[in-house]
Amino acid sequence: MRATTIHAPFDMRVEEVPEPVVQFPTDAVVRVLRSCICGSDLWAYRGEAARQPGQRIGHEFLGVVEETGSDVTTVQRGDLVVAPFMWSDGVCDYCRDGLTTSCEHGGFWGTVGSDGGQGEAVRVPFADGTLVQLPREAASDDRLLSALLTLSDVLGTGHHAALGAGVRPGATVAVVGDGAVGLCAVLAAKRLGAERIIALGRHQVRTDIARRFGATDVVAARGDEAVAAVRELTRGQGAHAVVEAVGTEQSMRTAIGVTRDGGAVGFVGVPHGSGTGVDLGVMFDRNIALRGGVAPVRSYIPELLPDVLDGTIDPSPVFDMTVDLNGVPDGYKAMDERVALKVLVTNG
Amino acid sequence: MRATTIHAPFDMRVEEVPEPVVQFPTDAVVRVLRSCICGSDLWAYRGEAARQPGQRIGHEFLGVVEETGSDVTTVQRGDLVVAPFMWSDGVCDYCRDGLTTSCEHGGFWGTVGSDGGQGEAVRVPFADGTLVQLPREAASDDRLLSALLTLSDVLGTGHHAALGAGVRPGATVAVVGDGAVGLCAVLAAKRLGAERIIALGRHQVRTDIARRFGATDVVAARGDEAVAAVRELTRGQGAHAVVEAVGTEQSMRTAIGVTRDGGAVGFVGVPHGSGTGVDLGVMFDRNIALRGGVAPVRSYIPELLPDVLDGTIDPSPVFDMTVDLNGVPDGYKAMDERVALKVLVTNG
Repeated sequence: MRATTIHAPFDMRVEEVPEPVVQFPTDAVVRVLRSCICGSDLWAYRGEAARQPGQRIGHEFLGVVEETGSDVTTVQRGDLVVAPFMWSDGVCDYCRDGLTTSCEHGGFWGTVGSDGGQGEAVRVPFADGTLVQLPREAASDDRLLSALLTLSDVLGTGHHAALGAGVRPGATVAVVGDGAVGLCAVLAAKRLGAERIIALGRHQVRTDIARRFGATDVVAARGDEAVAAVRELTRGQGAHAVVEAVGTEQSMRTAIGVTRDGGAVGFVGVPHGSGTGVDLGVMFDRNIALRGGVAPVRSYIPELLPDVLDGTIDPSPVFDMTVDLNGVPDGYKAMDERVALKVLVTNG
Repeated sequence: MRATTIHAPFDMRVEEVPEPVVQFPTDAVVRVLRSCICGSDLWAYRGEAARQPGQRIGHEFLGVVEETGSDVTTVQRGDLVVAPFMWSDGVCDYCRDGLTTSCEHGGFWGTVGSDGGQGEAVRVPFADGTLVQLPREAASDDRLLSALLTLSDVLGTGHHAALGAGVRPGATVAVVGDGAVGLCAVLAAKRLGAERIIALGRHQVRTDIARRFGATDVVAARGDEAVAAVRELTRGQGAHAVVEAVGTEQSMRTAIGVTRDGGAVGFVGVPHGSGTGVDLGVMFDRNIALRGGVAPVRSYIPELLPDVLDGTIDPSPVFDMTVDLNGVPDGYKAMDERVALKVLVTNG
């Protein structure tokens, strides 16, 4: 079968790889229908995260179960399923607490020895803990499939950010970052009852999606200028709940800067760079909390799925470019050059 | 009247200062019965926090109302009252939210132009927002007065730390720091239903108080050794809720190190030093939250007061040395040299 591999920075290939097979009784093999490219995939693409030549890539996918190990009980051949961006056993202390990202047997797609989502098929460890069944009829609805695919990462991650930020009905929310996760955080904040949602972003195509997702205000600025603008919109106080969906020192500094005293920053931007942007003295004086991290999206799927299925929320507009498997390298290029927001990959 | 003043590092004096009088209709004058010395006063004492020569000091006191301005309605002459370590107007947005430390008109005792608690009397701005009435009969009960005095800072700060750490019934809690605040955090965690409380501290006199306050385990170690010990006590996982009550880079690092994935650090140690001890990558990977800051103790007094009055909790053992006003300089010396944990000052 064919799958995307990374050989060096900017060297993405779609090539023949071994067909996945069930190796353990808890495995399943999923034939991928839809996958996509994540902003975090770009770190490997740009060489900021090391990869071994030939490593698989892609951690967001949905598809049809093709084979199951003898211990798998919750899904069967022919089921339409979505996979979260990490696998998890579903039974350890952390999984039972809902923190599937800390699963004692968990792991990331595309790590050495495991399959990635940007390919024709994937061996899924701990299928019972990992996969979530979707209605089979969704397979014939392109828009719905795209929307459901966001359950694998960006929608759940946006939801995690909104929860971390403490979004409550009536809250004023600010979202730092206009990538797919930031936009999904807008959607999640709206869903959780935020009254006012201020989206910070300088790309109008993206902030237009933010407005469509529920943003009431857009601040097209960064740093001190953004902080001043958000304060002006909030009687000088800032937002109760702030999402940090970038991961740079500056974005964290901005996020803390726009947070109202007593509020919280929900951070889901993977931290990179040498500094943290966290001024503990400011957080102390103003009682600003910091809460977030890698999102246990597996735990959020049961809550979010019904709203996606019935159209209460439609995250599918985060995909603004579609390629087939052969087009994956072009998709990376488009996202790297910020021509595309998020690239959908359709198989067959 | 006489009050404590600071003239230079290690130069504390008890000297004649002007009698306080009502200057604004919202003021009250309180004749101090009990005050105390705080660990944070030592920064001024040691010259780590700048003070102008002759500045007043002390931010924890209780006493009797002597005079009230014409707008004061909630307390009257003769009332026994306790003051939190900041004054607050009680009516601004933040005060109504319970975040009295962010009050638009709030301030700290002992700042230039305001009185400090370690003296015979204090002018209290915004008396209605600031002071809390206590039963008059408490004035004749020495132990109870000491216990009530902790409502001005350390008990409420420990409670804030426990809330920030997310202490819930059944939780496993770790407390980094065996000062008065750390000990009060043990007491607060116990009060909030913690099942297991691990106190980290290397001074047996203090950890003995921790045990008396509800600690089930003591770890007499620091840094990596402390982290390993707490993990060994918690099946390798760490504590759900961790209190950071020191404020150094190392203590924050330890606090994060002993926190279970998905848990929270409640931080109330005033951050000092150049580094933060906050490794955002670790917090991200393990979903560790950081929540705390300067404690809005004014808001906690109504909740904590009944438990102190009826003896459900007795924080008075944090005082292990008592001086009169003349003895305040000796009290500073004893705390600086760690001979005393916390010094009570009795007037008259």
